[in-house]
Amino acid sequence: MRVDLNADSGESFSSWAMGDDAAMMALVSSASVACGFHAGDPSVMRATAALAARHGVTVGAHVAYRDLANFGRVFVDVAPGDLVNAVIYQFGALDALARAAGTHLAYCKPHGALYNAIVHHEVHAEAVAVALAEVRPGLPVLCLPNSAIARAAEAHGLRPVFEAFADRAYTPTGTLVSRREPGSVLHDPAAIAGRVVQMVTQGTVEAIDGSLVSLAPESVCVHGDTPGAVAIARAVRSALDDAGVQVAAFA
Amino acid sequence: MRVDLNADSGESFSSWAMGDDAAMMALVSSASVACGFHAGDPSVMRATAALAARHGVTVGAHVAYRDLANFGRVFVDVAPGDLVNAVIYQFGALDALARAAGTHLAYCKPHGALYNAIVHHEVHAEAVAVALAEVRPGLPVLCLPNSAIARAAEAHGLRPVFEAFADRAYTPTGTLVSRREPGSVLHDPAAIAGRVVQMVTQGTVEAIDGSLVSLAPESVCVHGDTPGAVAIARAVRSALDDAGVQVAAFA
Amino acid sequence: MRVDLNADSGESFSSWAMGDDAAMMALVSSASVACGFHAGDPSVMRATAALAARHGVTVGAHVAYRDLANFGRVFVDVAPGDLVNAVIYQFGALDALARAAGTHLAYCKPHGALYNAIVHHEVHAEAVAVALAEVRPGLPVLCLPNSAIARAAEAHGLRPVFEAFADRAYTPTGTLVSRREPGSVLHDPAAIAGRVVQMVTQGTVEAIDGSLVSLAPESVCVHGDTPGAVAIARAVRSALDDAGVQVAAFA
Amino acid sequence: MRVDLNADSGESFSSWAMGDDAAMMALVSSASVACGFHAGDPSVMRATAALAARHGVTVGAHVAYRDLANFGRVFVDVAPGDLVNAVIYQFGALDALARAAGTHLAYCKPHGALYNAIVHHEVHAEAVAVALAEVRPGLPVLCLPNSAIARAAEAHGLRPVFEAFADRAYTPTGTLVSRREPGSVLHDPAAIAGRVVQMVTQGTVEAIDGSLVSLAPESVCVHGDTPGAVAIARAVRSALDDAGVQVAAFA
Repeated sequence: MRVDLNADSGESFSSWAMGDDAAMMALVSSASVACGFHAGDPSVMRATAALAARHGVTVGAHVAYRDLANFGRVFVDVAPGDLVNAVIYQFGALDALARAAGTHLAYCKPHGALYNAIVHHEVHAEAVAVALAEVRPGLPVLCLPNSAIARAAEAHGLRPVFEAFADRAYTPTGTLVSRREPGSVLHDPAAIAGRVVQMVTQGTVEAIDGSLVSLAPESVCVHGDTPGAVAIARAVRSALDDAGVQVAAFA
Repeated sequence: MRVDLNADSGESFSSWAMGDDAAMMALVSSASVACGFHAGDPSVMRATAALAARHGVTVGAHVAYRDLANFGRVFVDVAPGDLVNAVIYQFGALDALARAAGTHLAYCKPHGALYNAIVHHEVHAEAVAVALAEVRPGLPVLCLPNSAIARAAEAHGLRPVFEAFADRAYTPTGTLVSRREPGSVLHDPAAIAGRVVQMVTQGTVEAIDGSLVSLAPESVCVHGDTPGAVAIARAVRSALDDAGVQVAAFA
Repeated sequence: MRVDLNADSGESFSSWAMGDDAAMMALVSSASVACGFHAGDPSVMRATAALAARHGVTVGAHVAYRDLANFGRVFVDVAPGDLVNAVIYQFGALDALARAAGTHLAYCKPHGALYNAIVHHEVHAEAVAVALAEVRPGLPVLCLPNSAIARAAEAHGLRPVFEAFADRAYTPTGTLVSRREPGSVLHDPAAIAGRVVQMVTQGTVEAIDGSLVSLAPESVCVHGDTPGAVAIARAVRSALDDAGVQVAAFA
Repeated sequence: MRVDLNADSGESFSSWAMGDDAAMMALVSSASVACGFHAGDPSVMRATAALAARHGVTVGAHVAYRDLANFGRVFVDVAPGDLVNAVIYQFGALDALARAAGTHLAYCKPHGALYNAIVHHEVHAEAVAVALAEVRPGLPVLCLPNSAIARAAEAHGLRPVFEAFADRAYTPTGTLVSRREPGSVLHDPAAIAGRVVQMVTQGTVEAIDGSLVSLAPESVCVHGDTPGAVAIARAVRSALDDAGVQVAAFA
């Protein structure tokens, strides 16, 4: 048995630090590196790619709406043609820096508000898929099952790779409980680690109402932007190792 | 006989237009396309590359200091390592968009204050050369003869390509008369066109003191950012055609 | 009889020009000056305010979403608290520059996507009103009748000032025809000028279906960002002068 | 006996945190708040001003070159007229937010590369002084003695307020030892605290060569951007309290 662990990374910018990329790179198999539109300046991008290369971690493009002022966390109703080109721009910029760092881009994971939008927003999902198909035919795209981006990726010959979230509660129908609901985010490392092992080994997770939901993620997202998050990632990795699950990049 | 004509292009941004790229593409053989750091957003970059492709014009990366607020026209004392990565970022971003537009990057021409700085600024010149050698070994770089960037390009296995400026006055030693001096910029299309023909066919130009200076440019820069500039470019192109000089990309 | 004519202004940025502020200042009574978030850098802002002061034109703050890359023309789902502070920031910045230019801010007109959003978006309308009430109690706010911002302005002790658009078609119920509909934007200077005179002197306008709609604008917006727009503004001003209507700021 | 303690503050931006403003506000008497050009977004600016107000800490404008990507830490050779307007813009923006937070701006302290440049750069020093004299005649400006900005401030009727740096080594002539020299930055809280007490009570500091230098700062700068820095600030404040020195704003 095997699974990919992915984490957002390279989200520092200028003099501002974000997260502990060094700690996370020892735990995950895929690093989604910010491309300068929500976080990440060229030096951060290259250093993060180099760090991933040293740890044998696969690098993906963490593309976003152009919005440093909101860290890519709010919806921006950009014209679809501009979104296509913004994604190509980010992908090309990071790919050049990744190559300078001795690695290359192997997948894409949209960030924040863009990730959330393209679960439902058909036009932005289509734009992201069109852009990725232009820069790298067949590219894997991390996404939620049954999402607009999964369908658009499929339609454009990309490979949708379904991911689960280690620290998020699920509804009985297998969707994420909204962050606005109580109990939507889990905090206990041991409990989170146990859920991830169950997802991977049994293909199920306990929903927020106690029912059992089927879930077959190729990748599990762990967060790395707080000290607590590193502890959670460590617990998840350790539990997977103990359960005999191989942590390896999907790409 | 042949020469390259190059022009800055793709310097619109968001809702702001700059220059008349459509008119210029019919006249030049090389288009230096802005990469988003001083001008050019992703959609402008792609549209400009597509325009160049349709006209058979070679595309280069017009890399710059990161400074939209000053259009890349003032010196920014950025750390050399950050400049290396900024150049790689810009090159990679534009290259991806150029490929989506059916072409690719064939050279680099630094912009504005960066262009001026690396005539003398050894550290920034070295940074630009290191960056370009990393992304594209052997890449041609448009520059002035006897400049720090020409030396650094040579040292890193790049190809320095010397350019002259159609509308600028020259000193008796063959350097540009500073823009702060009277008479440093020429405005008469016929006179400018005559000078360019003389540069290309005889390898000389009349300096500001009336003396004759040797000059052997592989490329001549014409400007395209005003209606008057288009008229000048048209006169230059027409005079070269009349003189039997082939206008063709160096790259 | 009197009416205010307002125009967006100060929308140049860095080396990019936008519109013909000098021509417009001779025609309008109120200038809505960009504050740096969608357009306008500090030098442009001050020069525009100085130009307005020389022409006796009243200056307002043309506040916007923070989005130079889209010229403030797309919706940004910013958190309401951040929008409150963004509006205060822009207002304070422009007010300081206007005072340095010998004038001051007398009103606010939200720009582009923000203007359109707060016709209906209660939360962003409330944020704009809260911000303006904090920086300048009782401030006039240019807006559409029956809009969320008009209600919020009223509720916070501001003065909603209703405006009409010189070059836009109206529905039979007095709302603007969407720009996506054919015929939504008028182009004939004489026809537009006639409509404005009718609005001001008779309080009516012919709707797109030919019916007559009541309209009592305190201010009429004319555009200034193209040469054609200046011709329209000139025709409107001239027709108002001929009709004996005094063009004077509402504020 | 009394002295002012000042610290840079409000240097978070978007989702990125910088420093521990809450801890520092309990220790200092003056807070220099970033204005959005090197750090600080509108919400951070307001929250920091509110925090200062709650602690009875005086607020100043920490104006900077426009350069988020380098945190205002590199020289930008901006045109002097543009620098004048950039300073007015920043001051006005922060003043409006400070007033919304129940306080107001009482002084200015230029940041980073701008602070360093205007020790010697006469043209940028003049620009800063002209801007401040326009927005607030007589405004106190934190600066080094014998600097270009001190002279320009004096010439424009502003009040230069000389500051010392708690954690920096001094040359025998009373200037700062360059950060590039070994020993230029001190790290031991007790030693630093002892130096500050000596500066304030005896008007002297031991230079890097062991000699005694006269120094009569009205304000002492402590840093707040690392946990270690907070410990130093705490040691300084405590030592001043123990020595019977009143810590109070100069403004």
